[in-house]
Amino acid sequence: MSYRYAYNTRDIKFILKEWLPVDEVLAFDRYKNYYSKEDLDPIVDQVRKVAEEVIAPTAEDGETIGVRFEDGKVYIPPSFHKAHRFLQDQGWGASNFDIAGEGCLPFTVFGLLWEIMSGANAALMPYVGNAGAVASVIHHYASDELKKKFLPNLLNGTWGGTMCLTEPSAGSDVGDMLSKAYPTDQPGLYKIKGQKIFITVGDRDDVENIIHLFLARIDGAAKGTKGLSLFIMPKYWINEDGTVVDNDVQSAGIEHKMGLKGQATVQLVVGENDGCRAYLIGNPPDENGVGQGIMQMFNMMNEARLDTGRLATAVASNAYWNAKDYGKERVQGRLLTNPKSGRVTINKHEDVKRMYLLNKATTEACRALLAKCYYYEDVREFAPDKERRKWAQSKLDVLTPLCKAYPSDEAWGLIAESLQSYGGYGYCEDYPAANAARDCKIWSIWEGTNFIQAMDLIGRKWTQGKGVPFGMTLKEIEDFIGANKGSLEGMDKEIGHLEKALAAYRGIQMMAAGYAQSGKIGLMAVFARRILTATAQLYCGYLLLDQAVIAKKKMAELGEGHYDYNFYLGKVISARYYLNNAVPNVWHVADLVKIGDTSVIEAPDEIFEY
Amino acid sequence: MSYRYAYNTRDIKFILKEWLPVDEVLAFDRYKNYYSKEDLDPIVDQVRKVAEEVIAPTAEDGETIGVRFEDGKVYIPPSFHKAHRFLQDQGWGASNFDIAGEGCLPFTVFGLLWEIMSGANAALMPYVGNAGAVASVIHHYASDELKKKFLPNLLNGTWGGTMCLTEPSAGSDVGDMLSKAYPTDQPGLYKIKGQKIFITVGDRDDVENIIHLFLARIDGAAKGTKGLSLFIMPKYWINEDGTVVDNDVQSAGIEHKMGLKGQATVQLVVGENDGCRAYLIGNPPDENGVGQGIMQMFNMMNEARLDTGRLATAVASNAYWNAKDYGKERVQGRLLTNPKSGRVTINKHEDVKRMYLLNKATTEACRALLAKCYYYEDVREFAPDKERRKWAQSKLDVLTPLCKAYPSDEAWGLIAESLQSYGGYGYCEDYPAANAARDCKIWSIWEGTNFIQAMDLIGRKWTQGKGVPFGMTLKEIEDFIGANKGSLEGMDKEIGHLEKALAAYRGIQMMAAGYAQSGKIGLMAVFARRILTATAQLYCGYLLLDQAVIAKKKMAELGEGHYDYNFYLGKVISARYYLNNAVPNVWHVADLVKIGDTSVIEAPDEIFEY
Repeated sequence: MSYRYAYNTRDIKFILKEWLPVDEVLAFDRYKNYYSKEDLDPIVDQVRKVAEEVIAPTAEDGETIGVRFEDGKVYIPPSFHKAHRFLQDQGWGASNFDIAGEGCLPFTVFGLLWEIMSGANAALMPYVGNAGAVASVIHHYASDELKKKFLPNLLNGTWGGTMCLTEPSAGSDVGDMLSKAYPTDQPGLYKIKGQKIFITVGDRDDVENIIHLFLARIDGAAKGTKGLSLFIMPKYWINEDGTVVDNDVQSAGIEHKMGLKGQATVQLVVGENDGCRAYLIGNPPDENGVGQGIMQMFNMMNEARLDTGRLATAVASNAYWNAKDYGKERVQGRLLTNPKSGRVTINKHEDVKRMYLLNKATTEACRALLAKCYYYEDVREFAPDKERRKWAQSKLDVLTPLCKAYPSDEAWGLIAESLQSYGGYGYCEDYPAANAARDCKIWSIWEGTNFIQAMDLIGRKWTQGKGVPFGMTLKEIEDFIGANKGSLEGMDKEIGHLEKALAAYRGIQMMAAGYAQSGKIGLMAVFARRILTATAQLYCGYLLLDQAVIAKKKMAELGEGHYDYNFYLGKVISARYYLNNAVPNVWHVADLVKIGDTSVIEAPDEIFEY
Repeated sequence: MSYRYAYNTRDIKFILKEWLPVDEVLAFDRYKNYYSKEDLDPIVDQVRKVAEEVIAPTAEDGETIGVRFEDGKVYIPPSFHKAHRFLQDQGWGASNFDIAGEGCLPFTVFGLLWEIMSGANAALMPYVGNAGAVASVIHHYASDELKKKFLPNLLNGTWGGTMCLTEPSAGSDVGDMLSKAYPTDQPGLYKIKGQKIFITVGDRDDVENIIHLFLARIDGAAKGTKGLSLFIMPKYWINEDGTVVDNDVQSAGIEHKMGLKGQATVQLVVGENDGCRAYLIGNPPDENGVGQGIMQMFNMMNEARLDTGRLATAVASNAYWNAKDYGKERVQGRLLTNPKSGRVTINKHEDVKRMYLLNKATTEACRALLAKCYYYEDVREFAPDKERRKWAQSKLDVLTPLCKAYPSDEAWGLIAESLQSYGGYGYCEDYPAANAARDCKIWSIWEGTNFIQAMDLIGRKWTQGKGVPFGMTLKEIEDFIGANKGSLEGMDKEIGHLEKALAAYRGIQMMAAGYAQSGKIGLMAVFARRILTATAQLYCGYLLLDQAVIAKKKMAELGEGHYDYNFYLGKVISARYYLNNAVPNVWHVADLVKIGDTSVIEAPDEIFEY
């Protein structure tokens, strides 16, 4: 039994009830008649229970049974069918993405609940959630007629949903895709031809139909991403009377992956028999051949980017909590500081504690970053004030690449340390760390590689809106420092590091701008990923200190004897560890950018033969 | 077909023929009648061919067939049998460890040949090599009678060999092991009882017998590691007439590992029927109950530590060369610096080149570090001058923990970047990166975890011999800087970084000493692994610059048109990348040590519940 669910929800409750301005969200018209702050703890507890009892038991099947491809059909583990159905029926599934629906949970809450569930079986969640993401695109951009046709069964889990972008010869360069769409006699209806690969949950045997959002170029449209359009392409065509017929969408195979073995990753061949029909979302390309597809797809993509960071955070967190549970039981060695006291459990050793604290602080940093964005999603969508909605959107624009890349980059190293803490057993599949490591590696790649995120950050988000939104984010950190410097007892050093990092970060921006202006644009690419990491560390350092301000107050209030004291102490220690060990990397990266090594740029291809 | 061998041997030839003082080694009595410098290229080429044609084709079987445990027997893939036999018969196997034998290859050469073979199937090599390592211990410490009995069949591959240390309740704390040995009427002969786990190639179906080096405590000996003795424990007992009988050494199971699936990792139950006999190596415990076992085992262990670093280097190198081969074929995207030139192969993109150069420079750094140690092994063993042998031993003492830990720590990140460079295909087992990632993770754990290596470095090697040997290693770097500062054209900046790193490193030592003296010894543990990394980066920075000095001369000599010019250019670019991107981490670590965060030390266990 390699899988074991060990999630702790205390940090999530803290975020919801003590840190984020959830009161503001719950007061929105959308939510005010449905939820109050008192409901949040029971909801979290309920989902934690569902995750443990319904979702976690399916994880092992994902590994042992896996996904099977036979005669053009994709079969997923039977326990996945049941878990998907259960989640839908109990209201924890795609219906929460129903923007027009009643009684939905706030994004702020649901985002964190989804993390709790993702930690229980990351491979399962796209079967449940992707239909909701498809529904969200349809809600925002499709005609009422199409909404009526597709939304109900997507939101209730009768149909699955996917996002079809990547092709055999076009991945990161989405604008080079070859899939084509041809108009028919009926306006809005097109014939589709093309191939797609790496389609997550692209086929499955547990739903009646699958609704693909399919990106293709309408015949004659412009080249590149701007010529693309987005289509609703059902696996089975739905006739007016509700009967269905085959729509010439064939599964051609599945990928054999390093991890996430329960998650179908499907190759699709579309319209090979000239029989695939699909509905255009929005308008056909304009007189310049410019379609609306890529903009629409980004609606879904940005959500998928947050989800990627969340998956990485969830899997790394669960690996960490498993590791510390093991460390409490496993007796080995003596204390370096007190060898005569006899053998101890390994969780007492300094280097093991270091591995745990690295994990605890970094996963809390990632969770804080993501949670902030779930909150901005609520404000962007439902705040009554238009300016505030715009403000939230600009925050999301800045933070989304960090949310996608930082947790998915860190997870690889974090899980390696959880694994390391077991000793040799960590390498055995009987314990969950190896599985977590195998699962997590795709998240630095899909939904736009982490390099694409980094270039999005420094190439677009730094300068978007003349740099005002990004500047406001740095200003937020500056204001925090101003408000707390000298007044946060025992944490002067940590606030000092945040201040030093902020100054160093502004230096990075100056130097990068210098590189861009002096024709050394290639250097921006060389440093992009390191700069993204530094950006996230700066911002997360601020978030963890912001949480520590609250935690310090609570510690003083509760006193050492209180059962909850150690949670708040842990928040303060997380902040200290992160500010003293992770945040200094910001000025280290500044140092590297300043050195400005050009070896990568100058290296001719030929040297890599050796 | 997930496995693909893509090794390039040019750097290895450079090390042997242009960098290391191989002339000195070939002039030793041991070698002078057998090998000359002109033989080295053909030998390397021959082994590269064997690796590709004989070893690499078995790698896939390791993954697909794997190791099977049935009715107390361990079965390994049939192709492993053949490859093992072939390597032995052709002289590439255990016989090279025959210290008394004639015509053996120098360690300096064989160490690098073993890397070439390890890159072709890392799971196979312990089946071939561990018998040689066992033979080496027997050669150094056992009686002539035992040598005569065991060496021939170990060295010719008729028998396998293992090292039995770890027990279910004693891993890193080897002194706590429970295995016992009881004297018999015959001096030197003992009865053994105990359990061992994680025994690499601990059982197999392709050899006639397996000779275990078994660590146990003779009844009544002292507690802790000092009471341990080492035994030769055959799987089948060999009668005087050469017939064999069962020796009560039972295989109880195998581990299901994340990678290295072709490598048997075996649980052994020994003497359960009171029928296991073994020969003591050396003398019984003295009057204080102190045995010779741990010292003897370290002979093998130190060799195993070099081998661990070599395996990590080999697998990371092969993953990198595969990645760059893929990158030459795969067309995607446009150049950031010249988008209008159309689609390019991905090996042209800055961030992909960065991933390749990170891999190239770091694997070359690891290879240089290891090769230096293979050379010291030759000098230690065969130099005519005793002082020089001692000198080489002291170098090995200092560098062994770096050799074990640095490559095995780096491999995880390096392979992740090779994998990342493929995009989504990197996550698919059809390409070799995922396999390499799964294989490499054990190497940071076995043969003494990398934390144990780090404490060996800063707790023992820094101060061993009153700090003279370690100080000499730093002096070597200082002398190099003195000799080359201002005279290595175009690399002033890089030499400046080495100088800055050396000063920072001495600062780390001062600060750590201060922590130790002021009762903050726990902080040494907290920073140990980071300090080990910094140590390796400092030393490897020196080695790569030392290589660049030669490469620069050759470039000037050969001129740009020469077919070999790009190899030397690559060496210079590796050095530049490493000195400008990796070596600055030394002063970053110094910065962290100076900050001296105590959060890990102060964290009570309870905070890790959250």
